[in-house]
Amino acid sequence: MTLPTELLSTLETLLDSRLSLAAADRDHHAASESFHRAPPPDAVVWPETAEEVAAIVRACADAGVPVIPWGTGTSLEGHALATQGGVTVDLSRMDKLIGVRAEDMQASVQPGMTREALNTELRATGLFFPVDPGANASLGGMAATRCSGTTAVRYGTMRDNVLALEVVLADGRIIRTGTRAAKSSSGYDLTGLFVGSEGTLGIITELTLRLHGQPEEVAAAVCAFDTLEQAVECVTATIQSGIPMARIEFVDEVAARAFRQYSGLDLPGTPHLMVEFHGSPGTVREDTGRFGDIARDCGAKGFDWATTPEDRNRLWRMRHGAYHACLTLRPGSTGVVTDVCVPMSHLPAAVAAAAADIREAGLIGPIVGHVGDGNFHSQILVEPGNEAEIAAAKHIATRMAERALEVGGTITGEHGIGIGKRSLMAAEHGEGWQVMGVIKQTLDPGNILNPGKLVPDRA
Amino acid sequence: MTLPTELLSTLETLLDSRLSLAAADRDHHAASESFHRAPPPDAVVWPETAEEVAAIVRACADAGVPVIPWGTGTSLEGHALATQGGVTVDLSRMDKLIGVRAEDMQASVQPGMTREALNTELRATGLFFPVDPGANASLGGMAATRCSGTTAVRYGTMRDNVLALEVVLADGRIIRTGTRAAKSSSGYDLTGLFVGSEGTLGIITELTLRLHGQPEEVAAAVCAFDTLEQAVECVTATIQSGIPMARIEFVDEVAARAFRQYSGLDLPGTPHLMVEFHGSPGTVREDTGRFGDIARDCGAKGFDWATTPEDRNRLWRMRHGAYHACLTLRPGSTGVVTDVCVPMSHLPAAVAAAAADIREAGLIGPIVGHVGDGNFHSQILVEPGNEAEIAAAKHIATRMAERALEVGGTITGEHGIGIGKRSLMAAEHGEGWQVMGVIKQTLDPGNILNPGKLVPDRA
Repeated sequence: MTLPTELLSTLETLLDSRLSLAAADRDHHAASESFHRAPPPDAVVWPETAEEVAAIVRACADAGVPVIPWGTGTSLEGHALATQGGVTVDLSRMDKLIGVRAEDMQASVQPGMTREALNTELRATGLFFPVDPGANASLGGMAATRCSGTTAVRYGTMRDNVLALEVVLADGRIIRTGTRAAKSSSGYDLTGLFVGSEGTLGIITELTLRLHGQPEEVAAAVCAFDTLEQAVECVTATIQSGIPMARIEFVDEVAARAFRQYSGLDLPGTPHLMVEFHGSPGTVREDTGRFGDIARDCGAKGFDWATTPEDRNRLWRMRHGAYHACLTLRPGSTGVVTDVCVPMSHLPAAVAAAAADIREAGLIGPIVGHVGDGNFHSQILVEPGNEAEIAAAKHIATRMAERALEVGGTITGEHGIGIGKRSLMAAEHGEGWQVMGVIKQTLDPGNILNPGKLVPDRA
Repeated sequence: MTLPTELLSTLETLLDSRLSLAAADRDHHAASESFHRAPPPDAVVWPETAEEVAAIVRACADAGVPVIPWGTGTSLEGHALATQGGVTVDLSRMDKLIGVRAEDMQASVQPGMTREALNTELRATGLFFPVDPGANASLGGMAATRCSGTTAVRYGTMRDNVLALEVVLADGRIIRTGTRAAKSSSGYDLTGLFVGSEGTLGIITELTLRLHGQPEEVAAAVCAFDTLEQAVECVTATIQSGIPMARIEFVDEVAARAFRQYSGLDLPGTPHLMVEFHGSPGTVREDTGRFGDIARDCGAKGFDWATTPEDRNRLWRMRHGAYHACLTLRPGSTGVVTDVCVPMSHLPAAVAAAAADIREAGLIGPIVGHVGDGNFHSQILVEPGNEAEIAAAKHIATRMAERALEVGGTITGEHGIGIGKRSLMAAEHGEGWQVMGVIKQTLDPGNILNPGKLVPDRA
């Protein structure tokens, strides 16, 4: 696609040097942390205000040119790739903290602010923003993907922690959804509609986020089990007992070996749980004691408690460094990352079936998971450029998704649809996917907002 | 409106005696627990399956006749009134528990099942459904209104506790939204779109609900404060400290007098908080201790702890009986019930301003609230049929809503829009209200699903 001269001149007048057609800038916005690939966008723009975003969208709408919002580029399903060309709207200059209302436990931020930057700003307030997908993603991107991560079992996902949005629609209108109240029954949940819409219904230009109190006391532990079933039984019993886990992460024997190799930690090559507790000193003592009893009943051994911040950081650095740790199991490889979520009772069978598929394909694929939610990932290690291996890994990923659907689960717990999972949408949603398409068509009749993602192709 | 003969004959063939044109049945479905009034529907039907609901909707769509879903009729904003005539779909025969999956902490129910019936069925499982609006409403109606109640501060609202739905659309298609997984990033959140849509986008025919573990230990207390500000300061400090309150309810001095008069309880005529804690014996001991310290720091006196089930039931029966208790302050009166929700920091001023307006109007209007969420209600006592008083009460309600909007709050925390709050929607949502209208028009082009509610009138 070559961009129309009139559009380029409008954008140039509006943005001056914040419009780029340079190959380096365009290529940077064609990068993807996963195996998804697409040509670069035709242009990149760096707006600084919602009004500029609206003017960009209006100009692109007039020209019928795609608009692709860009946060930090850490999405895993090709969400921010310009698969149909067009203008990538890089929101990294809209990275300001607009305000913290500590008494209301809320913050308003621009979409390009990252979660780590927000938490750094919040340090002195006694509050924090808990959603933690691992990557230091932008908060706008996290909302657009409806992401979650290790702490969702306690604090919820982006669905639960976004109170209100400012959004630029496909015709350039700027709307506000939601309020600063903790709850509302006031009409359709437009905030909830835009959270998870992956830039296909509008571009988020401001978020009002729910904050939480920094816990007075934090304790973390890692413990080993002989079998997957024991570890999952422990998770189920813990959740049912109502112990408010802050994190409860599964690490399979393959991933445990990678962690040991990478970090030098003394982990046996068996399934593990990594857990964290937040509360007052008294409740954390009580919760850790109760969890310890349940875990031992389920066959846990070798508890390693981390109560100092240094020990805890070491533990969670290891978990968040899983991707790179696991790559060392096959030097030179890259990972095809899967992401399904199933009802808890189906978790042991789903994990076991995935592991068996990976073994049968002769591949290495460590499995980790946010098991308190029934969400797990395999990182199937493939040789870059080896199309046969990538196809085999994708086939395993598809089988995992199909099996998740068979037991009432979902094809993606937290990574979203993008281009990677569109082919599975009809299987999960049936006619509901058509309803999504109709909503998209109504709110974006010209199909300019991140086209080719999430919804069905138009007839 | 007289129903077309062809429609009547289709419905009769389909439903036989489960179609009624009798005045008694129609009048029963014109009743409302609030001051909203409308003529009865032209017919009432009692379907027993989703397929029957779909057939009813298809027949009404063909005839261009409104379809109004009906749960238990406990809505407060006229949601289920047939303001434009048509067929009321009474879902009370679809009241079955479809299944409990205890290991997954989920239940599937038909929409006509009430929350009390569900909790009775769940008694032996160790699980319960926590959303508690006071009334024994149907679960389908609760979802359609996105209601909440006293326990939302701990367990969330219907938004947080509905995992999946089966919905009949305006053209009779039956779709399923959501999954049985605890979370998902799979496309637009259609479940969230239908929750709170008040029957205007589809008729809910099945719900998958999130259950929670029955707490091992429960403790409740009521404590008095000298001033509103002290009570709210106590709430703010408690929430910020991270103490996981199960309920934290405000009762103003007028309501406290009504409770004393009605139940014979020894409550001083000052503001009170009623609180409840859920957990293990150890964590409840810790939490109640910490709350007690905070409350005393804020000036609380006269703690009355209720640890036996009998004492607790007496306490919450009093709170849930607030409506009838408050009516005794003015024998023969009826209540105009308000429902706003504001950011916590604005709660003292919002409550004080409402109380002042009520006093200035020469009316009696006790105030109670789910203050952990910033949500409060006044029940303004008016003489039935006294239009001047009703107008004055409505004016106060409108002022409360306007003031809530001025501080970033919402016009309804949990009662919904229906016909009662439509005139305030533009003020809360601006262009967003038009977006709601466009979504409604797309999914219900014939405007047959609960027309005249929630969204703007069509051009």
